[in-house]
Amino acid sequence: MAKGRLRHAVPVPKQVDHEQRRRQIADALWRVVGSGGFDAVSLRRVAAAAGISMGLVQHYFGSREQMLGFAMDEVEERVGRRWAAELARLPDPPPPRAAVRAFLVQVLPLDATRRDEAFSLFAFVAEGVRAGPIGDRMRTGMAQLHEFVTAQVGAAGAVPDPGLAATTLIAVADGLAAHLLGGYLDAGQAVRVLDAQLDLVFGPDPGP
Amino acid sequence: MAKGRLRHAVPVPKQVDHEQRRRQIADALWRVVGSGGFDAVSLRRVAAAAGISMGLVQHYFGSREQMLGFAMDEVEERVGRRWAAELARLPDPPPPRAAVRAFLVQVLPLDATRRDEAFSLFAFVAEGVRAGPIGDRMRTGMAQLHEFVTAQVGAAGAVPDPGLAATTLIAVADGLAAHLLGGYLDAGQAVRVLDAQLDLVFGPDPGP
Repeated sequence: MAKGRLRHAVPVPKQVDHEQRRRQIADALWRVVGSGGFDAVSLRRVAAAAGISMGLVQHYFGSREQMLGFAMDEVEERVGRRWAAELARLPDPPPPRAAVRAFLVQVLPLDATRRDEAFSLFAFVAEGVRAGPIGDRMRTGMAQLHEFVTAQVGAAGAVPDPGLAATTLIAVADGLAAHLLGGYLDAGQAVRVLDAQLDLVFGPDPGP
Repeated sequence: MAKGRLRHAVPVPKQVDHEQRRRQIADALWRVVGSGGFDAVSLRRVAAAAGISMGLVQHYFGSREQMLGFAMDEVEERVGRRWAAELARLPDPPPPRAAVRAFLVQVLPLDATRRDEAFSLFAFVAEGVRAGPIGDRMRTGMAQLHEFVTAQVGAAGAVPDPGLAATTLIAVADGLAAHLLGGYLDAGQAVRVLDAQLDLVFGPDPGP
């Protein structure tokens, strides 16, 4: 009993999980984006949404730009983790069609998580059109994705111009993402369209 | 001289061109959207950008929603006029592939005008996800476009599922529009991809 009281009386240095705090701030940022768009994002508004002081937000992020950069990292990491999990379920090495499909379905807003992410990725496109660093990161990421898809399409050997087929496939996925967000399509239609385009580019799905 | 003086002395009711005034306000709205995004749009900011009083803006538009609705009309009318001009250059009735292509190139941001429009259309998608009336209009417009493209694809008779091919084609065009806006593609690449997809759906372009 005495020991227990002592333990509670001594102020223990609080273990602050910095990563957790950053994620808390990033989650607040997404809520601000979701209700007011990217233009509503400011250190002040995000602090209010996270229920912490603006000084604490500034301790982690020096500027709006840094905060948006971290939010982009977060989205990329989440997409990357889900993609890796999908790839782990495929034979090694993964068949080209399945490897590409595993990525593209991660960027389609087929559930609440991916819907938030897709909304934010379109906001990043809009932000990138105006601002410098975010746009550069978007372009680098897109170039890497295009290189990967082109290599996979080339490996499958079903079309004469893998680069063009890759550009088309990524455009289909992002167009479907926009149409899902806008409510012009449902999830089933979007997946059917994506699979049909994958069939054109890789040949029909051989099945499991 | 006396007559001239008289004419100038008598206050002549000013001929206000209401359409011109509305367009002036709409142009100011686009400048506000271009610099601060849709979330920056308010009657006050648009009045400031147009260099007119907020009372005058309110004379033409009772609410932000009405103003956005008018701005959507404007974009639709401009796209429609350019499409009609393209169709007028085609044989009557226009060949299905050419009729669809004539529309889809109007929504690709291939020049400054269409870039502003594409940026605003993506902003309307984002706005429509949150708000009611704008989203309904976007969905109605998309359903009409899909119906038109499906009919043209069906008339060409080159694919077994015209509805699916139409959804894909519109997704390709909107995906390319996003990628052009983001600077991932140049105009030449985008048009090549669109034409390749049109070839898949309609069969190769027979040429002029």
